[in-house]
Amino acid sequence: MTIGEEVTLDQLPLRDDLRGKSPYGAPQLDVPVRLNTNENPYPPPPALVADVAEAVRLEAAELHRYPDRDAVALRQDLADYLSVSTRVVLSEANVWAANGSNEVLQQILQAFGGPGRSALGFEPSYSMHPIIASGTRTEWVPAPRRDDFSLDTAAAAALVRAKRPDIVFVTSPNNPTGGSIPLDELRSVLDAATGVVVVDEAYAEFSSQPSAVSLLADYPSSLIVSRTMSKAFAFAGGRLGYLAAAPAVVDALQLVRLPYHLSRLTQAAARAALRHADATLASVHKLAAERDRVVEALAGLGYDPVPSDSNFVLFGLFSDPHATWKSYLDRGVLIRDPGIPGHLRVSIGTPEENDAFLEASKEVSR
Amino acid sequence: MTIGEEVTLDQLPLRDDLRGKSPYGAPQLDVPVRLNTNENPYPPPPALVADVAEAVRLEAAELHRYPDRDAVALRQDLADYLSVSTRVVLSEANVWAANGSNEVLQQILQAFGGPGRSALGFEPSYSMHPIIASGTRTEWVPAPRRDDFSLDTAAAAALVRAKRPDIVFVTSPNNPTGGSIPLDELRSVLDAATGVVVVDEAYAEFSSQPSAVSLLADYPSSLIVSRTMSKAFAFAGGRLGYLAAAPAVVDALQLVRLPYHLSRLTQAAARAALRHADATLASVHKLAAERDRVVEALAGLGYDPVPSDSNFVLFGLFSDPHATWKSYLDRGVLIRDPGIPGHLRVSIGTPEENDAFLEASKEVSR
Repeated sequence: MTIGEEVTLDQLPLRDDLRGKSPYGAPQLDVPVRLNTNENPYPPPPALVADVAEAVRLEAAELHRYPDRDAVALRQDLADYLSVSTRVVLSEANVWAANGSNEVLQQILQAFGGPGRSALGFEPSYSMHPIIASGTRTEWVPAPRRDDFSLDTAAAAALVRAKRPDIVFVTSPNNPTGGSIPLDELRSVLDAATGVVVVDEAYAEFSSQPSAVSLLADYPSSLIVSRTMSKAFAFAGGRLGYLAAAPAVVDALQLVRLPYHLSRLTQAAARAALRHADATLASVHKLAAERDRVVEALAGLGYDPVPSDSNFVLFGLFSDPHATWKSYLDRGVLIRDPGIPGHLRVSIGTPEENDAFLEASKEVSR
Repeated sequence: MTIGEEVTLDQLPLRDDLRGKSPYGAPQLDVPVRLNTNENPYPPPPALVADVAEAVRLEAAELHRYPDRDAVALRQDLADYLSVSTRVVLSEANVWAANGSNEVLQQILQAFGGPGRSALGFEPSYSMHPIIASGTRTEWVPAPRRDDFSLDTAAAAALVRAKRPDIVFVTSPNNPTGGSIPLDELRSVLDAATGVVVVDEAYAEFSSQPSAVSLLADYPSSLIVSRTMSKAFAFAGGRLGYLAAAPAVVDALQLVRLPYHLSRLTQAAARAALRHADATLASVHKLAAERDRVVEALAGLGYDPVPSDSNFVLFGLFSDPHATWKSYLDRGVLIRDPGIPGHLRVSIGTPEENDAFLEASKEVSR
């Protein structure tokens, strides 16, 4: 018998708004084709694996000592990567990093949100935004997208002017729908905002649109661009999220971050992975081409795929999406039911995985 | 010029209670003798370093995939370690882990604290307790210790009965003062509590008292025992905190944890380090013996060291502790000014480091 197993969750003095809730997270199932969490399907190249292992071996000899609390070297490497990829020269003072972009977002909400403050997002979007808002007791203000899931930025700006949220989330490309927002449209939201605007660019490397990083010089007191190494960098298992913003924003986050939040191993491994950016990012072009192939094939099968600038595709229409999701799973293909009426989401995998998905798509119940 | 550097922290829409604050953290200075953050001075043994490196090398090939969100294998290993060291049989369902005990404590406060709720702690104690309470908007209720820094548990129990805090922190051994609390005295606090009682055992391995884990069977709906691998395990750079509690408490924390919070590297490295527990924990006895030597030597020099069950010693008395702290630093010895009138704290280092500290102690201004 397990100690304490007689106590139930209901008997604990849990905070009221958590009662009856379930933990966030897609099922982690061991199936042949896993296309449910927008991971990069290509394993890290052997040279990267060797470099990460060696970096960690050197670091492990100092494991008895706390890591660099400010992760300065890693932030400099991330600034260098962003400077090259966005052609905007950033310094380490513009960059902050944490254990996944979830922790970055949580720190933003701790610093700029909280009780009595509000965060607005355009739904459907990344479902962790309202969850992290709730976790920091920030009021969540859901705002709509067009029926085709694109963002009406004129309407969005008008809503931001009317509601004056403390934080606005704009996800570009948007997860789970796939589309990006052009910079001039983003400007209209930024012009309307009185608080901070978080442009969540988790999938930026897959996008045809330039990064919002190029707007930082014009909106230094409001714009925060969040990023992750999980997707394009094939580093989901390494948990490294980061952001670009004015140095004062980074100062603000240092007031709420837990000290020594990034381990020596994380810092060393992420730096090693960044040294292999060119090799890893080569997968981005392959995945974008596969994405376009999958979209075309789905349309050919009579589905209704939403145009995507990312490494996943939202598609429909289904009378009972969850039944169809299960029908894919029965065929060894795990995709995502994002809870959007009529739709499912598939991550782009290797050509073989995508073929398996497309084969299943011919057979599943609609 | 750095982008956005013209914006100051005051110009940002920061939440009000953060205005004017500074980030937590001891100075990270490169000096010959660092005895300021209670790190284990002994580097990991070569076999551990090799094992961590190999575990990470294997894991790195799967870095493109998210980690096990529930970290089940690591939690089982931690349960096994606790079962052996406390002689209380725990299962993986009793254990939760996060990036340092700070994140464990933050999750506890997110689940059981927050706006309209309160957390009580006996000061001086670990200074992150009120900071994490503030970060989760939990009201902090400071409670006193005796003048000699020991805990009057009868008075503590009476106060807990009167104030009815949602969370009580009891740090044993207490940081930065060093003393442990016997289990029967801890029971009186647990009997008084209506919310949860977090016994922070970051330094438990150094203590002469048994772990509060042995009280879990009697207090399954209130007791949470938090632990860390930073100190005895010489794993401060690896960032691994954990707790033991009833399974329902672990369920509660899964409602507030950020998904995939523990990286593949952290899980693999911590598991590798746990395989070398016997070798690492051998340093605990050396450090305890050195601690007793330092206490005796300090007393011989006319200081007033507080009895310690941990790997650090609080000592006084100083008319101007910060001036004395600086006087040690001028001699290449970095210790901690914990902000307690008349006192400074020194971590126990290697015999050579302790000798350097004691030599400096003969010379510094009092």
